[in-house]
Amino acid sequence: MAARPVNVLITGANRGLGLEMVKQILEAQRPVKNLFACCRDPDGPRAEALRTLAKKHPNISINRLDATDLCSIKECSQKVGTLVGAEGLNLLINNAGFMSKSTLQETTPEDMKNSFDTNVLGPMNVIKEFLPHLRVGAKASEMPGMSSRKAAVVNISSVLGSMQVVKETYSYFPAISYRISKAALNMLALCGAEELKKDEILFALLHPGWVRTDMGGEEGEIDPPESVQGMLHVMASLTEKQNGAFLDYKGQPVPW
Amino acid sequence: MAARPVNVLITGANRGLGLEMVKQILEAQRPVKNLFACCRDPDGPRAEALRTLAKKHPNISINRLDATDLCSIKECSQKVGTLVGAEGLNLLINNAGFMSKSTLQETTPEDMKNSFDTNVLGPMNVIKEFLPHLRVGAKASEMPGMSSRKAAVVNISSVLGSMQVVKETYSYFPAISYRISKAALNMLALCGAEELKKDEILFALLHPGWVRTDMGGEEGEIDPPESVQGMLHVMASLTEKQNGAFLDYKGQPVPW
Repeated sequence: MAARPVNVLITGANRGLGLEMVKQILEAQRPVKNLFACCRDPDGPRAEALRTLAKKHPNISINRLDATDLCSIKECSQKVGTLVGAEGLNLLINNAGFMSKSTLQETTPEDMKNSFDTNVLGPMNVIKEFLPHLRVGAKASEMPGMSSRKAAVVNISSVLGSMQVVKETYSYFPAISYRISKAALNMLALCGAEELKKDEILFALLHPGWVRTDMGGEEGEIDPPESVQGMLHVMASLTEKQNGAFLDYKGQPVPW
Repeated sequence: MAARPVNVLITGANRGLGLEMVKQILEAQRPVKNLFACCRDPDGPRAEALRTLAKKHPNISINRLDATDLCSIKECSQKVGTLVGAEGLNLLINNAGFMSKSTLQETTPEDMKNSFDTNVLGPMNVIKEFLPHLRVGAKASEMPGMSSRKAAVVNISSVLGSMQVVKETYSYFPAISYRISKAALNMLALCGAEELKKDEILFALLHPGWVRTDMGGEEGEIDPPESVQGMLHVMASLTEKQNGAFLDYKGQPVPW
């Protein structure tokens, strides 16, 4: 039996890992019906690559979604709901993120607020607003158990959100507000995994590796294609056993 | 050699665990020079027990400090700085906290903001503003290594901030915004531990147990005196080996 085409949504899809995910999802053999590529400013200069891609691929739909603007999330959810209808949404990728590299002594309330709003409150609001479509996706699916082709929320986290790596990594890469926000995101996803397992909606956290993007910087260890190839492979392999798991792009568990 | 009297500051000192800590610190044999008991409204009805206590104990100084109001933190820090002078501050207890019991589906951006502001941003601002006095305390001390009688930041966290207990506890006690904020606080303290170890300022996280207070509710397992007795014992035993540790009121490590 051929796999049923799925509906996928990605936030922060205009550049970095998000854009690369859009590219690779389109090239993959697993069919995608609608790929909702969301970004803050679909008409701006920073979304040009995404617009070029969309011209070639009619199943991409570019949508305005600013993770820090609840109205934009609600509007986007309404549009997506109309488009997916009774099929629902199958995979929601919370990818939009903000990073500041500051130390405890350098960080400011504004820095903390920016990290929290984009990396924690944003994903939370996105999850809550798209939950009805994920529920429809889970119910419409004929697959047993959980999977990213049925109903899943994948959150792009970071090993920097791991408590257990602070000792060995803090001195050369402090990023305290980023670490705090990713630890918070990890907890959010873990709680989501518990709360929504009865609806067969899977939650996972992925660490993309240290990637050479605008965020990761030039010193990164891998390029976006390698990271995304790994992450999509991990997403495709998720089952109820990985509900609430924190995995790196190679599929290895990351310690809390 | 008799122990040198120390200067201690506690936030949220007007009730619950904070008030009990004030009581027990005064009764303890280890001498305290100044005990800065901070709360949001020192003149209000909810600080009456603290005022009564202060009348009997001249080393208590009641100070206005609202963890969500940076100006109040700065003002309090200035007052404390003037009072402690070249002795500095030895122990800062971030105790003020906010709890909401909501689920992912019930929580709101306001609920998330309240938890984050009081339980994460508040402690961060308090740490940053009192850091100069802690540095003075560390330098003025003649003790080698780290201890809570030299210079330490003790953060009252919760086992609910532990990722590893979510699976077994979420269904009967969701409190998602509280869990998220305590995981974030844990990360904050861990980063602080790394960043400030060169200044010999110790950071620790304590889980008070499930205590019968306004926050913990009547179903709690222990009363405030037992929790605080345990926590003060743990605080007194902290050395550089526990820098960045997450311990319960019995001194047992809590998993991340």
